[in-house]
Parts: sequence; structure tokens; C-alpha cells
Amino acid sequence: MTPEQFRQYGHQLIDLIADYRQGIAERPVMAQVEPGYLKSALPDAAPQKAEPFEAILDDVNHLLMPGLSHWQHPNFFGYFPSNGTLSSVLGDFLSTGLGVLGLSWQSSPALSELEETTLDWLRQLLGLSAQWSGVIQDTASTSTLVALICARERATEYALVRGGLQAEAKPLVVYVSAHAHSSVDKAALLAGFGRDNIRLIAVDEQFAMRPEALREAIVQDLAAGNQPCAVVATTGTTATTALDPLRSIGEIAQAHGLWLHVDSAMAGSAMILPECRWMWEGIELADSVVVNAHKWLGVAFDCSIYYVRDPQHLIRVMSTNPSYLQSAVDDEVKNLRDWGIPLGRRFRALKLWFMLRSEGVEALQQRLRRDLENARWLAEQVQATAQWALLAPVQLQTLCIRHCPAGLDGEALDTHTKGWAQRLNASGDAYVTPATLDGRWMVRVSVGALPTEREHVERLWERLQQIVND
Amino acid sequence: MTPEQFRQYGHQLIDLIADYRQGIAERPVMAQVEPGYLKSALPDAAPQKAEPFEAILDDVNHLLMPGLSHWQHPNFFGYFPSNGTLSSVLGDFLSTGLGVLGLSWQSSPALSELEETTLDWLRQLLGLSAQWSGVIQDTASTSTLVALICARERATEYALVRGGLQAEAKPLVVYVSAHAHSSVDKAALLAGFGRDNIRLIAVDEQFAMRPEALREAIVQDLAAGNQPCAVVATTGTTATTALDPLRSIGEIAQAHGLWLHVDSAMAGSAMILPECRWMWEGIELADSVVVNAHKWLGVAFDCSIYYVRDPQHLIRVMSTNPSYLQSAVDDEVKNLRDWGIPLGRRFRALKLWFMLRSEGVEALQQRLRRDLENARWLAEQVQATAQWALLAPVQLQTLCIRHCPAGLDGEALDTHTKGWAQRLNASGDAYVTPATLDGRWMVRVSVGALPTEREHVERLWERLQQIVND
Repeated sequence: MTPEQFRQYGHQLIDLIADYRQGIAERPVMAQVEPGYLKSALPDAAPQKAEPFEAILDDVNHLLMPGLSHWQHPNFFGYFPSNGTLSSVLGDFLSTGLGVLGLSWQSSPALSELEETTLDWLRQLLGLSAQWSGVIQDTASTSTLVALICARERATEYALVRGGLQAEAKPLVVYVSAHAHSSVDKAALLAGFGRDNIRLIAVDEQFAMRPEALREAIVQDLAAGNQPCAVVATTGTTATTALDPLRSIGEIAQAHGLWLHVDSAMAGSAMILPECRWMWEGIELADSVVVNAHKWLGVAFDCSIYYVRDPQHLIRVMSTNPSYLQSAVDDEVKNLRDWGIPLGRRFRALKLWFMLRSEGVEALQQRLRRDLENARWLAEQVQATAQWALLAPVQLQTLCIRHCPAGLDGEALDTHTKGWAQRLNASGDAYVTPATLDGRWMVRVSVGALPTEREHVERLWERLQQIVND
Repeated sequence: MTPEQFRQYGHQLIDLIADYRQGIAERPVMAQVEPGYLKSALPDAAPQKAEPFEAILDDVNHLLMPGLSHWQHPNFFGYFPSNGTLSSVLGDFLSTGLGVLGLSWQSSPALSELEETTLDWLRQLLGLSAQWSGVIQDTASTSTLVALICARERATEYALVRGGLQAEAKPLVVYVSAHAHSSVDKAALLAGFGRDNIRLIAVDEQFAMRPEALREAIVQDLAAGNQPCAVVATTGTTATTALDPLRSIGEIAQAHGLWLHVDSAMAGSAMILPECRWMWEGIELADSVVVNAHKWLGVAFDCSIYYVRDPQHLIRVMSTNPSYLQSAVDDEVKNLRDWGIPLGRRFRALKLWFMLRSEGVEALQQRLRRDLENARWLAEQVQATAQWALLAPVQLQTLCIRHCPAGLDGEALDTHTKGWAQRLNASGDAYVTPATLDGRWMVRVSVGALPTEREHVERLWERLQQIVND
């Protein structure tokens, strides 16, 4: 494809995307297709000859679109929001169009420096002190893996340059809340700790980690000859957006020399609102924190921000320095390859930069406040209505709800809950996420998609009350 | 930004990118800026109010562009090519514009199914048997980390669900060529093996791993009570594009039960040419292989393809299954979250699909053959010219060269080599990568950027002959 063809087809694609975003509310939120629908519709092999661009766009419209669940839809209340503001979308387009890579500062200086500057802007917006340095990772799963590897290496005084985890006398132990995201467990397993060395710490009635239980677990491990290594606290857990108490956890971590990693993938966005900062009280006691700017905040996926207090430690763990990557200015610059797992790096700061400048901080704050108010409104309706239950505090923008008809409990109630959630999703009218809480099914309603206004939340509430009786 | 504003600004951005690609040859290839140039030019904090889009584009043109090293430039001969064909760029635009995520099949069915189908198309093009299943990772660094973690878990019969690497009686050992990419070493360290348990296997005069040396190292480890775990072979090493002999290495791996991971990040693209398949002879003995479709092949970064022979093993190592990610169809579908580290996933198959359809296989083959011929032509000039040396066989598209004026050797020759490479890069006329080979500096010329035609290689050769005397 020549630049002139790109110009022509690019304009067509811009219109397709603009039309898609404009008309998205007309589509069923969740894809209404069966497994295998697309595989069976596509050819078995790649074409030998070029096909016209129109044929590809035609397939996009007729084959792909029906197979999408629309995350940018005003009636998307599933998982957590993954907002792709259109300003950040354009920033990402520029990244892909330029096609430059950040292997090292020299391989595209503007890439590294814009990442450093925009992450410092964001740091200020989040209320983090100047002690923190950031880097863009793909997802919180990766950020947490990096954090636990760094914890492992600090606890062992860099065993990676000796026998690795294979020569340590005492088993290293990781502490997480029973409500931590599945990626935390996965990260600990991938980093080599082993499930036997992951302690699930009990939570209180608000599903937040109990600091006393953490302290007891550490004391038990010390008595057993194990080495407490790291604790992962979450602000905004996936099930209920519970807030682990950072200050208490941080003080315990410091007293025992544990690495404190804070998973603020979700609640981190709310830190741009001063009135929400109490959720992060004690954050300065942490060693690392992850904030997914690609969630509620609105930077097109992927843009997971990993902040650390000791970048030299991160670099020492992640650094490689083969001759073909060296340059004369290495002592003066930040080489982002040493800040994470991948060597290659897209120009991801562009999408954050485009969004911050094109929207401005005040508009971002306004949108998040809108969502918090919408969630509070819905919570009030649920609480005020017979047979409906709100199962956890609504501290952020996610509700955990259940419809409890008289006489239904146990598995019968589970069947009812899963049934209406599935009917709602299948109807295409809204997308919600069923999940378990204390061993029983409930439904998560996560408010905060970009185009979701009060009217959409009101219609959702009407629809919920209908669907449970269908 | 509203969809209507997006339409307007999107058209402007398309034109900016089309103009950039059209006029790229006029720019100096390597950025001619000093460390800190951009950081000092940008504001200290994010703007509170929205700024006009024109102001952002203005900064792109005047602040960012001078700070880019242009990977899509016809005179880019650095590192390895990272080609972003404009058809794949449009595919990536669609991915970002749609803003859908592949956490699970259900979260956007078309995303998972198109990835499965296009990776099967690519598998056929590469000449891999139907035994292989693929998944898109971000980079080869990550693919190799996943491979070594999978090797670790196979060797320990899933120690991750017990004591991890911390409870194994015998140290697990990883074998790599001394010419393996720095990411292989890094992956082994991050996976917890420890540097003491990485064996650097000697290479032959063509810089390929010596199978006999591998066998001897394994025998020594067995005698010492260690457990040989994995060997990483490379087709197309970074320094010289050397080709480790897969069949011999694979037979040794099978005889001793080692996991064989093949790093074909670079040479994998060449497998779409039947005449290059000899480089992969024995590939079917491997357990995993990585091919970076975002390098020479031309899919916009990032698109590293990880193929495995035993997907059930990969899934068992990577799988998490919290309630909020479960769906009714999980038994019938491929949930790509269980195929790698991140949970979230962009619709990356679109860029591969757009490129394969819009270019067609024959045009891709033709472009790669053009590059191979250009590299051969340049190799002939170097070999035929006094005081110039070709330091390694040109089996692919990368040359390792040195200019050796009479009487210069040792450090004086190193100084000469680094000097002219730096002058050439600083001139902006071409971008090459200095690197060491056998402890001495040389210059890598990696042919294969999208717009690089014979004329550009001819001009490079003229320029090289001038610059060494400047």
C-alpha cells in the first residue's frame, strides 16, 4: 500500500470508526454469535494476490462487527471500563503511523522523553510525591509480575546473578488478599514462588485485607523459618472495588522489610479527584504501584502505568547491555528497555499526551465525578427497592447486586442470579458481569463507559427490574 | 472529543502520516538531538483546560519530529527492520478505534477467532505443520520468557502449584548459544533460573551453536547432579544472523528431555520463502518458536507470534479462572488470556489480517527476495573491495562489515570503526548499528526497511566508502 493509497483508505477508515462510535448505541452490547462463527466464515489460507481494500472493509462490517462485544457502548457495564477516548485513539494512530521504536533513548529520543514527561504529569495528577518514577507497561498483569520479580530480587540480594530462586535457603513468601485479582496469583506463580508460598490473607466485612491477619501470617512464617518477601495490596478489587488499608499494611511491610506492591489498576484513575485521595492514604509507604490509565481514565488500551520508588533497583533487575544496544549517551538518558520485560516499545506516551492535552484535566475530573454520581444514584435505587440487595459498599463506581425473591436462597438463588444476568447480556440491552462473592453468585454493574450518562443508568435500572421476572 | 471532531482531526492526522511516509527520505535517519531536548521544551504539568488539536499537531511537527529516528526510512539499516506496512497500520487503527478487549472469547468473539485464523494462515506460510498453535505476544522477549517458564514447569511437573522453584532438589539448567539475544539471558534470569544455571554454548566459525558442545554441557550437568531443562536455539542471531542447527540440537534435546525453544524473531519471516526453509530444517523437533511478524515481514509493532506444540501445557501454566471471567461457552472456545502473561488483549490480529489480504502473499515474498538480493549485492561489493571485510556469512539480509586500513588493528581499529559508524549516523544519511564480534567492533548493515530499494543500497555503499576517510 502506497502512501497515496493509505491516504485514500485511511480517510475511509476514519469515517468508519467515527460512524461506529456515533451509532454504537444501536448495536447489541454483547456479541450474539456462537463459538466458531467467524472461523467457519473465513478462508482456510491467506490470499496469494492482493485483495481490494473495499473487500476488507466489507468483511469488517459484515463479518467482524456482529462478533464484537462493544466496550465503548453506553450500556456496557461489564468487567471494568476500558475507555478509549477519541483523543487518545488519535495519539495511538500517530504512534502506529510513525512506526518508531524505543529500544533505547537513541532509537527515538522523543519516544523516551515524552513517556518520562507525561508520566510525571500523571504522577502529579494522582497526588504521588516526586519520589516516584513511571514507565508504561501493557497491563497490570505484567506490572505486577515485574513488581514481584523485583521483590524477589531485593529479598535475595540479587539471587538472579547467582543461583536464582533455586539456591535460596529459606522459601520466600508472598501475601495477598483473598480478593486480589487473579493476575496477582498468576504473577507469583510465574515468578517462581510456588502456590505453597502464597498466603491468602483474610478480609473484613467490606472485603478489605485485615492488617492484623497479615501481621499474624508474617509472624507464623518467620516462626516456621520462611522469609516474608512481598505483600500486594489492592485499591479497587475486581469483585467489589474494596480498598485494602494501605497505611496499616505499609507499616507492617516496613517493619518486616517486605516489598509493598499496590494494585490500583482500577481505583488509580480516581486519584485525579482530590476527594478520593483518602483511598490511597499511606501510598507513599509502597515500593511500587500500578495504575491502568487504559481503564476508567480513558487512554486507549494498552497503557498500564507502573510507578516505582527505586528505579535503580528496577534497572538492575531488568537491565541488559549487549553491544548492539549501547550508545554514547547511555549515561545521560533513560533507556526504557531496562524498565520492564520487552525490549521493543511502541510510542505509547502519545495517546496519554493527546488525551491530557485535548481533554484537559478538568474535563477528565468531571467525567469521573459523573460516573461516581451515577453509581451512587443506582445504589440508592437498589437499596430502596424491595427484594434487591447491595452486597458491598459503593466506594467507587462498581455495584455488586443481587435480586432476592422471597423464598429463594442457596443454589436456587444462584440459578436465578445467573439466569437473569445471562438473559440481560443475551438481550443485547446491557452487558453486566456475574461473579461470586462469599461463594454465591451476584452481578457486578460497573458504571463508567465513556458515553454512559444518567439516562443510560436509569434505563438499566428499569431493565434490571424487568429482566429478573422474565 | 466527539465522533464528529474525531472525524475532522482524524482526516488531518491521516494526511500528516501519509505526508510523513511520502517525504520521509528527506529527513535525517537518526535523530540529531541532545538528551533532554524534549523534556526541557515541554510544560511541567498537564493542562487544566482543553487545548486545540491544532496546537498538538503543531508540537508533533516541530517538537517531536526532530526527535525521532525514522525506522520506516529507506536509509534505515540499523538493528533489524521494524516494518510497519501501511495496510497493517490501518488494521491497527481499526483495533484502537473499536476499543474492544479480548479477556475471554465472550468479551469479543471476533477478536479471538480472527487471531486463531490468521495465525493458522501464517503457520501455513511459514511451512509449520498443523501440530502448531499460535498466539500473539508483544515481543520476542516476552515469548521467550513464556517459553522458559513453560520449560521450567514441564521439567518440574508443575512445581508452580507446589513450592515453585524454591523446593526443587536439583537446579534446572538452561542452555543458550553465546550469540543468543540478550532477551534470552534476561528471560532465564526473570524466570528464576539464576545466572549460575545458564550455560553459554560455544559457536562454530559461522557463529552457530556447536551441537557437540551442547551435548557435552548436558552430560557435565547430569554428572554434577543438575537437571538440564531447556535449550534456546536461534535462527538469525542479532549480531550476524547466524543459524543454529535445529535438527542436531533438537535431537539432543529430545534425547535428554529438554524443552527446545527456537528464537526465530528475525529469520522466521524468511520462512515464507520456500528457498529459505533449509534454515529451519528440524523445526518440528521444537516445543516452541517465536517469529516476530513486526520485524521484516511488515506487521506494525507489536506482533510477536509464539507457536507451541502443546497448547494444553501452556494453558495449564498460564491459566486463571476467577468467577468474573467465566462464561457458559468456556469449554468450546479458546480463551487467549490463558496463552500468555497479560489478561487484557488488543485486537492485534487485525493488522496481520489487513496486511496479508491487502498485500497478498506473493508481494510479501517479492519484497523479502528484493532485500535478500540487495544484501547479497552489497556483500559482493564489500568482498571485492580492498580494505573492506565481510565478517560473517550473509545468509539473510544483514551484513557484518569492517573497514580495515593497512596498519590498523586492535583498539586502533576499534576506534576507527566506531568513529566512522558514529559519523555516518550523525550525518543523518544512513543508520547502522555498531556491535562487537569476537571482542572487536564491527558494523551491522541490516537491509530490509520497507522503502529500501537497490538505489538506496548503492548510495549507502558509496557513502560508506567516503565516510571511512572523513
